[in-house]
Amino acid sequence: MRILWINPVGTDVFDADMQKILIEAKRRDTEVRVVSLPAGRPTYLSYHAYEGLVIPDIIRMTHQAAGIYDAVVIGCFYDTGLREARELSGQAIVTAPCQSAVDIAGYLGNSFSILVAGPKEVPKMTETVRKYGRAHAMASMRPLHLGVHEFQADPSRTRERLMIEATRAVQEDGAEVIILGCTAEYGFNRAIQAELGVPVIDAVTAPFKYAEFMAEVAVRFGWYPSRLYGSQAPPADEAATWDIFQDTAPIIRG
Amino acid sequence: MRILWINPVGTDVFDADMQKILIEAKRRDTEVRVVSLPAGRPTYLSYHAYEGLVIPDIIRMTHQAAGIYDAVVIGCFYDTGLREARELSGQAIVTAPCQSAVDIAGYLGNSFSILVAGPKEVPKMTETVRKYGRAHAMASMRPLHLGVHEFQADPSRTRERLMIEATRAVQEDGAEVIILGCTAEYGFNRAIQAELGVPVIDAVTAPFKYAEFMAEVAVRFGWYPSRLYGSQAPPADEAATWDIFQDTAPIIRG
Amino acid sequence: MRILWINPVGTDVFDADMQKILIEAKRRDTEVRVVSLPAGRPTYLSYHAYEGLVIPDIIRMTHQAAGIYDAVVIGCFYDTGLREARELSGQAIVTAPCQSAVDIAGYLGNSFSILVAGPKEVPKMTETVRKYGRAHAMASMRPLHLGVHEFQADPSRTRERLMIEATRAVQEDGAEVIILGCTAEYGFNRAIQAELGVPVIDAVTAPFKYAEFMAEVAVRFGWYPSRLYGSQAPPADEAATWDIFQDTAPIIRG
Amino acid sequence: MRILWINPVGTDVFDADMQKILIEAKRRDTEVRVVSLPAGRPTYLSYHAYEGLVIPDIIRMTHQAAGIYDAVVIGCFYDTGLREARELSGQAIVTAPCQSAVDIAGYLGNSFSILVAGPKEVPKMTETVRKYGRAHAMASMRPLHLGVHEFQADPSRTRERLMIEATRAVQEDGAEVIILGCTAEYGFNRAIQAELGVPVIDAVTAPFKYAEFMAEVAVRFGWYPSRLYGSQAPPADEAATWDIFQDTAPIIRG
Amino acid sequence: MRILWINPVGTDVFDADMQKILIEAKRRDTEVRVVSLPAGRPTYLSYHAYEGLVIPDIIRMTHQAAGIYDAVVIGCFYDTGLREARELSGQAIVTAPCQSAVDIAGYLGNSFSILVAGPKEVPKMTETVRKYGRAHAMASMRPLHLGVHEFQADPSRTRERLMIEATRAVQEDGAEVIILGCTAEYGFNRAIQAELGVPVIDAVTAPFKYAEFMAEVAVRFGWYPSRLYGSQAPPADEAATWDIFQDTAPIIRG
Amino acid sequence: MRILWINPVGTDVFDADMQKILIEAKRRDTEVRVVSLPAGRPTYLSYHAYEGLVIPDIIRMTHQAAGIYDAVVIGCFYDTGLREARELSGQAIVTAPCQSAVDIAGYLGNSFSILVAGPKEVPKMTETVRKYGRAHAMASMRPLHLGVHEFQADPSRTRERLMIEATRAVQEDGAEVIILGCTAEYGFNRAIQAELGVPVIDAVTAPFKYAEFMAEVAVRFGWYPSRLYGSQAPPADEAATWDIFQDTAPIIRG
Repeated sequence: MRILWINPVGTDVFDADMQKILIEAKRRDTEVRVVSLPAGRPTYLSYHAYEGLVIPDIIRMTHQAAGIYDAVVIGCFYDTGLREARELSGQAIVTAPCQSAVDIAGYLGNSFSILVAGPKEVPKMTETVRKYGRAHAMASMRPLHLGVHEFQADPSRTRERLMIEATRAVQEDGAEVIILGCTAEYGFNRAIQAELGVPVIDAVTAPFKYAEFMAEVAVRFGWYPSRLYGSQAPPADEAATWDIFQDTAPIIRG
Repeated sequence: MRILWINPVGTDVFDADMQKILIEAKRRDTEVRVVSLPAGRPTYLSYHAYEGLVIPDIIRMTHQAAGIYDAVVIGCFYDTGLREARELSGQAIVTAPCQSAVDIAGYLGNSFSILVAGPKEVPKMTETVRKYGRAHAMASMRPLHLGVHEFQADPSRTRERLMIEATRAVQEDGAEVIILGCTAEYGFNRAIQAELGVPVIDAVTAPFKYAEFMAEVAVRFGWYPSRLYGSQAPPADEAATWDIFQDTAPIIRG
Repeated sequence: MRILWINPVGTDVFDADMQKILIEAKRRDTEVRVVSLPAGRPTYLSYHAYEGLVIPDIIRMTHQAAGIYDAVVIGCFYDTGLREARELSGQAIVTAPCQSAVDIAGYLGNSFSILVAGPKEVPKMTETVRKYGRAHAMASMRPLHLGVHEFQADPSRTRERLMIEATRAVQEDGAEVIILGCTAEYGFNRAIQAELGVPVIDAVTAPFKYAEFMAEVAVRFGWYPSRLYGSQAPPADEAATWDIFQDTAPIIRG
Repeated sequence: MRILWINPVGTDVFDADMQKILIEAKRRDTEVRVVSLPAGRPTYLSYHAYEGLVIPDIIRMTHQAAGIYDAVVIGCFYDTGLREARELSGQAIVTAPCQSAVDIAGYLGNSFSILVAGPKEVPKMTETVRKYGRAHAMASMRPLHLGVHEFQADPSRTRERLMIEATRAVQEDGAEVIILGCTAEYGFNRAIQAELGVPVIDAVTAPFKYAEFMAEVAVRFGWYPSRLYGSQAPPADEAATWDIFQDTAPIIRG
Repeated sequence: MRILWINPVGTDVFDADMQKILIEAKRRDTEVRVVSLPAGRPTYLSYHAYEGLVIPDIIRMTHQAAGIYDAVVIGCFYDTGLREARELSGQAIVTAPCQSAVDIAGYLGNSFSILVAGPKEVPKMTETVRKYGRAHAMASMRPLHLGVHEFQADPSRTRERLMIEATRAVQEDGAEVIILGCTAEYGFNRAIQAELGVPVIDAVTAPFKYAEFMAEVAVRFGWYPSRLYGSQAPPADEAATWDIFQDTAPIIRG
Repeated sequence: MRILWINPVGTDVFDADMQKILIEAKRRDTEVRVVSLPAGRPTYLSYHAYEGLVIPDIIRMTHQAAGIYDAVVIGCFYDTGLREARELSGQAIVTAPCQSAVDIAGYLGNSFSILVAGPKEVPKMTETVRKYGRAHAMASMRPLHLGVHEFQADPSRTRERLMIEATRAVQEDGAEVIILGCTAEYGFNRAIQAELGVPVIDAVTAPFKYAEFMAEVAVRFGWYPSRLYGSQAPPADEAATWDIFQDTAPIIRG
């Protein structure tokens, strides 16, 4: 399987760490590539306007990845641009953290809590969980009151905040499973899991492994994305005419 | 009130008509301006990737409009970029056709049917209605099997298709109200309304008049958009640093 | 526009204040009249039996208003008799506080809290919000533990109670918007809004301005209430035969 | 048990038949009384305004019945005035056809269809089923296109219409249980049941037997209506002061 | 009516008490028999695996009861095996505590809280309430932190725990009705009811009286279980061939 | 990974075929074993009583599999005994066809239709989809009117029936993805997929590959089933005391 991980932010600060995590997480015969966006793009996506500014990059990258990669992962727990990217991924599967994490949680327990960066993230992420039909299984969504770039900047503080909120989620909200609701919360799940004794699903490996899984079944059984009705892709020639998919230099090839 | 209507497509082909419709629809003391996107942008948004490509324009235009306009209308029934645009509209209200039309319909009857361009539009628009909490009131969503640019190209065919599907919606699906689910379906609502004897809400005047209404109550009562939690705007200086809101030439000023 | 505000209670104690508020709130060319019910009717509607006792008055008044007024507002946050009144309003729009307030809130933030008089009001008002499809957006409903006639009797206490519960709604429940869930809570919204920095929608101006808005679009575009299926009005002659709509002296004419 | 059946219409045309049905249906030690409203009230309730006009009678009758009867049945499938009547029924249970029929259906099959008088009834009755939390179990609601007073006027036509729609409900909609959605549809359930081989719940015996059942458990176990929060009754003295519950001559006593 | 109460546990420790309760609760002409399972079966069902182990017994007993009993009650608040048992109950009605209790609560108040044995029970019972369509009416589900066999072992402690949680449910969660969410919580409802002044529905008499009620209307009106679609019973001869319904010695006859 | 596939029926007629399918479907380093139940158990599970009769076998087999297998698949689209089996699977993941198929479908299209054996299956399977929170994505559930053992008995008829209903699902119901709603519908998905051009998810490979995926992430990341609250397993010694898990000869060992 060839899998493309898109860090949809204008910084490569997370790329090396994630590449390392994904290489450890992947199956032997999987190839993985981590890319981020050109400088000048927002370096985190807490604000929806920032999300909106990078959606075209996600679309173009996914469009370029079609035919080369078997799956694409959009590395933001807002599942930014997921519907848009899926439209023109061709036969490539597109996954994103929130959908994959809540699906996986459904095999591990009756309920989950999601630990998100801050109060800013709560309304849209709650709506996303509701859209996926899993609001009834969400015990709570708890803000950590940490910025996206603070998670890795001060790991001991992050671990402490995560432990506090995960413990509350389990003890006060009745969560049976914990989900880390930001891709930048990587590197902490095993410690919290060990300490709390409940599965802790992180936002990096969950969508990545789901992508690997879906890519495998796509290739094996022909379970490629439907291209009917709402999933219909735009006509290839039309896009070419408008030159809209090519107006940035090739980002992920070469 | 000063209201900006954004036709979020890379063609001004609808602008003059819409300007005319809005000028007829507006209150005396309202000023309205219709803008569309630069050439090279998709000329219609049926595909979600096309939507994604124009979201940054919608964001930038709304950002520029803040402080100048009292309200901004995003002229696409997908309500494209609504959450993103609202974030940085400052004190300006942002409306979009689907939300306004289903809200208005709630004062006119028990149920509505939405007549959309084609089967492509059905899944996302259905999800949007569900997101707004009004799925129980939707009698049906019926595709007209006409492209966005065909509505005005062959008006007699469009009127015929609309009458056929509106009649079915009323007679077979039990709709008490009809909603025209594309801004390009303008100019037909009065005829169908007269013939069928049910209110027919069109996608141009509905969000425009709603914007005018909300702008008035914002100014009168201070009902400006909340800026708490999920509605918090990005810090102004940050955007400036990244230069991301300025990387297109000013579109709506001057 | 000609708008009739019905205070559906057997006291005119609120009439002058509301008339004043509405005159300040109205557009220049709007005429507004405030009426209340004859003495002997309940002077507040917290109890559902009291609501039931005044529904016929609401029906008769709305019936009389049809043809004279462009819109009728039922001034109780239970939206008392809304379905019944709408049936025979002819071309007049009928609005009520809860529906209008939650619709308006949908343009201002992701979630709202409603501050209601007491625990008595919570179950039915919660059911009403659920009926409108907005339960997912309600952060909380908080009782103020004040009677309907206490709000204006001791304004400083009312303001204090409102500030306490509004603050809790924002800080503990995550509300982005506050709704005042009783028409008698008038006169406080601006102060709380200023102090808390979130939009505070009151139950008087919200349905009134919504009525004005809907009346305008009804007249402009023919968006009069549907008269199909569940919205069908009773046959005019039948009502006359039974003399049921005339058994009180004309209330709102003359 | 002493049970009061209220035909909430201004005609006693159904009273004798219903009295007979209820006497056959009752347990030996149950006493039943059927009352209807004074002449001049609407003779059927298809229109919501008609419902509204009789709600005060239902309230007053229920208020009078409290302390005399163990249960009160409101004989209209709209469950007209149910919430209002329950408030001041004291220790008497109040039932109504829709709630009782859908509850009973839940013990007999996975899904039900409701056969209602006409398209007028569909929206409100659908909303009522949704309010009770049973929309997922409703296979369909089918209008019979017969007026309330036509059911008994031409029994052979009624039976034919019922058989046609019940058969469609079973064969096309997958209904496992049929509910007759109007109290005036009495006298047909056994024949349809025998012919179709599925349980057919009628709107007269269902709420009556449910009332008898609930009255028994109320008396036996003290399961009287809660009087907390939304179920709190108005203070007795207040009602007296306003003279609102006494402004009609005693209807059900003497 | 002849009613079979199945204590679906491998102990008869509750049988005598329940027999006594049911004899006091029954109507004069009702016959009731209490049976439990053979030794070696789990003696309580908090664990879902334990439930699974006794479902065949419930099925076989219900199958044997068909034709002899008019109704069967499955005495566990998980409503264990309800769907399975209903399939082959013939004309006998099958009830279970959760469904009956929430239905009865719907006639007594706007909301209920369920007091369950422990945190183990919460997720499945919550799902069951949601399945019945009543999640919106559930104020809370509160664990008592007592094992099933502890309820009767130390009645004063049980009463104390029940009072504490019932009081919290009423005061903090807004419950208008209390439901005791375990059949072993018998014998306490009257005391709590008297002390708190709200109806307290217990899990023994609720499904028993509901069974008696449904059995009566089944016999009177022919409202026997539907045998269509999902309610279709397996062919009698097939079961005989496989000898699966006979592989335990007759349990309830003789 | 070591995966156990349980055909929860008293016949091994499907075992060899499924073993073959799974061996083709598995990853190189996965070991798979297919087991079925002892003779005398129902040979298909369309009836819920039949499901109930085999749940103890599923429980015991899963209990035995814990510690030996990394995952267990319950091979029935009713997801029979899934909650029960999960409770005592230890660190083994348990999957079942319906949950896995609808989750996978969520990555391939906006909506799915499920082709089930007959009308018997529709109500429970619909409830299951609703329980998983995906009712909004189900375009339809269509019965094939074929018995479980007829699918393989007459493959050309089965293929024809599948093509007819799959085509209707796509063309009339708007399904973007097709799910085969019975494990015995194996061997047809590729042909239908090729002919219709939409992904066709079968009920054998879907839960098997999902099990393989979940087992891998469990081992890699420690994402073993939660054992808190509703997922808590019964105490090991208690089960031993009652001898309930050992009362059948070891089924899957040796």
